[in-house]
Parts: sequence; structure tokens; C-alpha cells
Amino acid sequence: MSARVRVPATSANLGPGFDCLGLAVTQYLTVTATLSEQDAFVYSGAGHLADTPDNLTHQGFQSAFAAVGEVAPKVRIEAHNTIPLARGLGSSSAALVAGAALADAFLGGSLGREGVFQLTAGLEGHPDNVAPAVFGGFTVSAKTESGYLCQALPLPAHWRLLFAVPAFELLTADARAVLPPTYSRADAIFNASRCALWTTAVALDKPELLRAASQDRLHEPYREPLIPGLAACRKALLEAGASAAFLSGAGPTLGAVSTDDAVTRQLEGILQGFAGEGEVLRLSASEGYSNFRAPE
Amino acid sequence: MSARVRVPATSANLGPGFDCLGLAVTQYLTVTATLSEQDAFVYSGAGHLADTPDNLTHQGFQSAFAAVGEVAPKVRIEAHNTIPLARGLGSSSAALVAGAALADAFLGGSLGREGVFQLTAGLEGHPDNVAPAVFGGFTVSAKTESGYLCQALPLPAHWRLLFAVPAFELLTADARAVLPPTYSRADAIFNASRCALWTTAVALDKPELLRAASQDRLHEPYREPLIPGLAACRKALLEAGASAAFLSGAGPTLGAVSTDDAVTRQLEGILQGFAGEGEVLRLSASEGYSNFRAPE
Repeated sequence: MSARVRVPATSANLGPGFDCLGLAVTQYLTVTATLSEQDAFVYSGAGHLADTPDNLTHQGFQSAFAAVGEVAPKVRIEAHNTIPLARGLGSSSAALVAGAALADAFLGGSLGREGVFQLTAGLEGHPDNVAPAVFGGFTVSAKTESGYLCQALPLPAHWRLLFAVPAFELLTADARAVLPPTYSRADAIFNASRCALWTTAVALDKPELLRAASQDRLHEPYREPLIPGLAACRKALLEAGASAAFLSGAGPTLGAVSTDDAVTRQLEGILQGFAGEGEVLRLSASEGYSNFRAPE
Repeated sequence: MSARVRVPATSANLGPGFDCLGLAVTQYLTVTATLSEQDAFVYSGAGHLADTPDNLTHQGFQSAFAAVGEVAPKVRIEAHNTIPLARGLGSSSAALVAGAALADAFLGGSLGREGVFQLTAGLEGHPDNVAPAVFGGFTVSAKTESGYLCQALPLPAHWRLLFAVPAFELLTADARAVLPPTYSRADAIFNASRCALWTTAVALDKPELLRAASQDRLHEPYREPLIPGLAACRKALLEAGASAAFLSGAGPTLGAVSTDDAVTRQLEGILQGFAGEGEVLRLSASEGYSNFRAPE
């Protein structure tokens, strides 16, 4: 008896949306779980993960069973992953969501998409990456007194998304350690207004708002020194006509939005210079996870 | 030669949207400016303003002429105002916008609506009240390197807006003095996520998001002690089924949103208790200022 799920990569923060804005993109983790004598994990794809059953997909799987008061069965998990690891494209969240969604498939859908979201946001501690992995598109999410809240909006179809993925990793914990404990009122208002502008730009298809909407004062200025070439690349992207340029998650991946083909080609060249030995991904907005094979 | 303009009241902040979210509502300042031997000001309507030409409407009028390098002509300004003064419903911004819009009428429209917005946001120092007074509806605005940016969205027509206007005044300067100089990262993220949720709720007509979306941690907790009865009234409103309850501007006016007639009637009773000797206004979203009489 096995089930399969496909979970999209995600770009969180998008500049000012620290821990609240996110976007699902067309790069995927595909996982098959098969009932087995003992837990096993077989990984292929981007980077290297140890073939041991202490991985995040198993954790998501077991947590989902625990959430409904059941003990998870032993499963062999086969993961094929095209999401770069530890680059700010949500590979960890995708693994957690895959595990919970697979468990939900075995549980006959008792958690549902909302249950998978609540569970994995709780495991992550913030909802910005799991929200788009679950619901797809552009997502606004928040932690509330009663759990997590998310509303998805479709991204306008003609917006081009580019991501420069450097060859080096940046661990989220390291990227959090450089942040200050407090912010000025002006900085808090700066980001709040831009989160509202980003959302407006998506809802009304107004890419001309993104230049201002994608600016951030809560994390990017502090993380910039950790990422060689970031400041110069961002400047070059904006000068070349990018609608937006932002760190994807905690970085080091740099995302850009464009709505013009000629500009997009120019941006690809600039982003390749930043990525160096890494790669430039040209992506679209993705739907949320799909259970494209139920348990059989 | 005279011109006339009608400018709506505005509710700014709306909970988390400190200095960035705003809403134009159906209560108005109507002003006629007539070329005259000397400046004069005649006021009627809400509260009392001295009949001296040092008022905000004259300031907006003169600043608009100065902005295009001209000296303002002397005008007699007759203002009829139904916007309560110093209650958090944007009466000062309306006066500035009226002056600038009247000047623009005399100048043949050389400033335009965008010019009136840039000018009056600059005079105010923040754009959240003047943006809806100029553009109407629900507005997201921000200060940028090159001036001010605003995008308006229509408020869903079936949302009911109630405002309890207490009999006492609260000066914006006093309401600013109680604010702390810095905020935690958690509070900054709290407000940013809720600004994005408010905007999403408006764009997608999802009033069910407003309960979370209208929460604030940047100003309301600090201003609450200045406004007797606020905490209890807000609690009662939410328990009665209000979609949102928030300070209008810096207060003391308390705003509420409802999408149900029976709930709305209940809220009116609760709000009247809070308003005391003051009044409860049942309003709708308004368009921006209208020049309903050009110079003749």
C-alpha cells in the first residue's frame, strides 16, 4: 500500500513579508510512501541527504498521525527532489508538508488541506513557507490566538519569476542570528505598508507597485553582508527594469519579478553573474501540493 | 469667480495599518472659495473653528499655488463641515485636501488628483488620511524615496461601517506621545501580516479575515488607556459578531465592520453606550473629493 504526493518549492518573505508572505513556485519535491517492515528513506535529486529515517518527511508523517491520536505505520519513503537545499526555497517546509500530506492520504483525508497547514505551520513555528506549499499561489498568513490563518491569491499569469540560486548554502538559523531584537516605529510602518502594497499589487495585477512594495527594513539589510554580491546584483536588476528584487526566504537565493520579455532576458544574465557556480531558475507560480496517487 | 469642492471624512489605521491604511467614508466637508479683496474664512457645521484666515483650508490653498510657483489669490472660504473635529475622522486632512483641490480648480487642473495627494501628504507628513480623501475607497499608501505612493481598492458594497464618536476630543499629538520608540520583531511582523490580511479581505471580499486582520500591536494597546470604555466596548462588539473593531485614526472614535443586519443593529446599541453624549454614525465607503463646481 503506497501513496504519492508532489509539493512545490516556496519563496517566503518576498522582501517585506517577513514570516507572512509566500509564493509557491514550479520546482518540486515528489515523495512516495509505502507501508513497510521498518522506516526507510531513499533520497535522490538536489544536493545530498542521508538515507536515514530521521528526516523531515518522516517527522511530518509521524506528527500527522500523532495529531489524530494514532501511531504512524512504518513506511519506506522515496523522495525525488528538485528543490535546492538550504538556499531559501522552502525545501524543509516541502519535506514536512509532504510527510503530513502522505499521512493524510493514509488517514483517508481526515486532516484535509487545512489540517496539514495547521500541523506543519506549528512544526515550523511560522507559516510563511508551508502556507504556499499547501494552498499554492501567493499567500498571506499569520499566527493567531487560535492557530494559523492563510488566504491565497492567484499570481497574475504574465508575471515572470526568476531565482538565482548560488552554489553556497545559508542556514536559516545563521540568517536569523544577525537580526536585531527591536525595530523603530518607522521601520515597522515601512514594512507593514509594503506588505499591504505587495498584496494589492497581486490582487489588482499592478506590477508597477512592486518596486516600492518589495522593499524591506526588517531582515534584508542585516542579511546582505552574509551574501557576497547581493547588493550590487539587486541594484543592477532594478536598473535593468526588474519590477522587484528580493531575498527568497532567508537567502542566499535572490528572486526577481519582471513583466517584460526583453527585460527578463537581461535579468537572467545579471542573475547568472550573482549565482556564479549556481543556477538561475525561470519559474511560474504553482498550485499547492497534489496527492496525485492515493493509497492503493 | 468661485469654485466648490466636497471632501470625505476618512478613517485611518483601521487597526494594524498605522500610517498606511485608510478608508473614505460618507461624511463631508464642503467648501466654496471665492476670489475676494482679502482672505476670509466662514465656518459652519461640526464643532467650532475661529473665523480667521489661518485655517488648514487656506494653508492647503496657498501651498498648492506655491507648489507651482505662483502666489495664491485672496479668497473668501466658506466651509460647511459634518466631519467631527479632533475625533480621528480626518477633519484636518479634509481641510488641507479641500484647500489644495480648490487651488487646483483655479489653476485649471495643473496639479491633478495625484498632485493634490503628493502636496497634502507632504503637508501632513504621512499619507494615510489624505490618500482616501483624494482617491476614495480603501487605500494603501506609503512614503517612498520619490514621494508618496497610493493604491485604492473599492470596499465590498455589503460591508456596513459604524463609527462611535465620543463627545470628547483626543489630539493626535497627545495620542502620538504615548507610543513607544521601538517594537519587538514579533510585533512588527504581527502588524505587517495583518496589513496584508486587511488588504486581502478587501480585495477578495473576505470579511471573515477581518477578525484577525484588524488586530494591532503598534498603537492601540498604548492608546487604550487614554480612551475610557474602549477595551470593554471592543470586547462586546467582537462578542456580538462584529467582523472588525478598531480605533479610527488616533481615536477616540471607534470603528466597526459588520456584514449582517441583525448584528449591525446590536453593534449600534453597544457603540451608543461607548459614545455616551456623542453619536453613532452609520456610514458607507465614499469616493474621493469631487470638484462639483469649477471656477466660474
